[in-house]
Amino acid sequence: MNISELGEFPLIKRLTEDIKIYHPKETIMGVGDDAAILAPLGTTPITTPTTTYQVVTTDLLVENVHFDLTYVPLRHLGYKAVAVNLSDVFAMNATPKQITVSIAVSSRFTVEALDELYAGIKLCCDKYKVDLAGGDTTSSTSGLIISVTALGTTEVPVKRDGAKENDILCVSGDLGSAYAGLQLLEKEKRHFLANPDMQPDFKDFSYVLERQLKPEPRADIIKLLRERGVRPTSMIDISDGLSSEILHIATASNAGAVIYENKIPIDTETYRALEQFNIMPLTAALNGGEDYELLFTVSPSDYDKIAHTREIRPIGHITEAATGCNLVPENGALIPLSAQGWQSFG
Amino acid sequence: MNISELGEFPLIKRLTEDIKIYHPKETIMGVGDDAAILAPLGTTPITTPTTTYQVVTTDLLVENVHFDLTYVPLRHLGYKAVAVNLSDVFAMNATPKQITVSIAVSSRFTVEALDELYAGIKLCCDKYKVDLAGGDTTSSTSGLIISVTALGTTEVPVKRDGAKENDILCVSGDLGSAYAGLQLLEKEKRHFLANPDMQPDFKDFSYVLERQLKPEPRADIIKLLRERGVRPTSMIDISDGLSSEILHIATASNAGAVIYENKIPIDTETYRALEQFNIMPLTAALNGGEDYELLFTVSPSDYDKIAHTREIRPIGHITEAATGCNLVPENGALIPLSAQGWQSFG
Repeated sequence: MNISELGEFPLIKRLTEDIKIYHPKETIMGVGDDAAILAPLGTTPITTPTTTYQVVTTDLLVENVHFDLTYVPLRHLGYKAVAVNLSDVFAMNATPKQITVSIAVSSRFTVEALDELYAGIKLCCDKYKVDLAGGDTTSSTSGLIISVTALGTTEVPVKRDGAKENDILCVSGDLGSAYAGLQLLEKEKRHFLANPDMQPDFKDFSYVLERQLKPEPRADIIKLLRERGVRPTSMIDISDGLSSEILHIATASNAGAVIYENKIPIDTETYRALEQFNIMPLTAALNGGEDYELLFTVSPSDYDKIAHTREIRPIGHITEAATGCNLVPENGALIPLSAQGWQSFG
Repeated sequence: MNISELGEFPLIKRLTEDIKIYHPKETIMGVGDDAAILAPLGTTPITTPTTTYQVVTTDLLVENVHFDLTYVPLRHLGYKAVAVNLSDVFAMNATPKQITVSIAVSSRFTVEALDELYAGIKLCCDKYKVDLAGGDTTSSTSGLIISVTALGTTEVPVKRDGAKENDILCVSGDLGSAYAGLQLLEKEKRHFLANPDMQPDFKDFSYVLERQLKPEPRADIIKLLRERGVRPTSMIDISDGLSSEILHIATASNAGAVIYENKIPIDTETYRALEQFNIMPLTAALNGGEDYELLFTVSPSDYDKIAHTREIRPIGHITEAATGCNLVPENGALIPLSAQGWQSFG
């Protein structure tokens, strides 16, 4: 059977469903969330129970699948490669501590180009106080490959599976902007290929371009939730699109969800950027991906502690599983949400 | 500057030399050994000091750079991808506990092919009692890419930098065999390309072929050293070749070394296999790589505890730094050892 027939999520399920766990006290949770949860133990028994969990997450970025060096500066790419992994660490309610970075490069890259890539990697490490602790450097027969693994610690890991009926669904920042930025960059690439003398026309779109090229993981949201004494009942980062992530939380929590179109935060620049492509901003928010915002649920009693917070918006609530996951549009009947995932096996 | 002009080791040094460490109590040692050493701590102070360290190592394997699917079965490849990372964990004197596996595949792979790859991954996890705790699955524009990160724990990490003058240099198993196996496989590939009806002639070479296709990390050596109460003063796994690894230990320990040609363990099948290629077995042992044996130093007072152990051989000793690293040949003058590393940036 061809991989593209099966799709990403069923493929992952198939490859990982019969995994045995040999260290249940140390591998608290494996495949199936933003990161694995570990509790490293020594070879001699520890008499005082540890209250610290470690989370581990990893991402593989492949040239011309995940990034296009025609328009992505290497420094931005290095930054983003780290940022997307830190986003997964924050989505576990953890503080990132270390990363490892492996790269494979073909000989068309110069040492100075790799300096630029690493400058971006180090800039992100610096901003989020993360230690670059190891890696591997090797050659590639074609293009650039970057593999980042991030490690973090938390005393209160938050998984996808804890959402309860009536919990409030919240989202940080705004959605669809990274996808809008991608459309602009792809358009300018087409123009550039047709006419290499052309200069890109990016004025008035700095926000959506930055969202695509240099996303920031939401350390500030995790900090705010801690300061306000709010423990989300479930959390995930929005890498594939809001729709897909809501389905992940609902499936893991054995619940349903309802969200309201008029509550989904979309920036005005995103509207403006997508207009020229005839793409509905709602579609970009639901299925665009790469926003790296946090989607989380809080119990109704906790919600007041974060209501009226500029960077957090309530977009709906958790329902019983039988109702499924639905969008209430501004006009018309309920629309069931559907997952996209990577459609990139081509 | 082109990457191939600079070479692997200087490139890694250049990219990682200005790394800042933000969590010195948790990131005990970063880049520069077989694995990083971590000591995960929580956000509240831990009053009883932890005696458990965690090690983290990662490897990136790229099709047609690190493996050739013309002759490497996917099941063996999966096994080896895990085994080489576990070898790095054992080389820190640690017990492997978890791995993450990321793969990028092009659409020419079938789901059944990935099943085979994962069967090998799971077989190695099963043999060494390691939990497959996470990963990433994505598409590739060309070929197969595998990134494995391995995590382990130890109360006594052994680094490269602890070798002292007069310590005995020991090596496990035998050397050069994986390189001999590679030569046989490459030869059969050339014959196969010339005449596809030809059947490979691998009889009498099962040992060297297995060493290349399905290496076993030396868990048994770590167990034996623990049972005998021997703590190596330094340790490294032999992935690039004995010569390169001795130089790593000597440089890190600010020491020199002398090894004796007639002490280097080489299997008779390796001699026999290499004869037809006019490759000196000594060259294969020193520079062939991929043996995944352990090279370590023990203090002279500890050596008696492991003398006469079938799987451990003394090959020389540590000297003062000024003498450098040298081989004493069976006939003739001292030969200085030189590093090879990956010469694969092409």
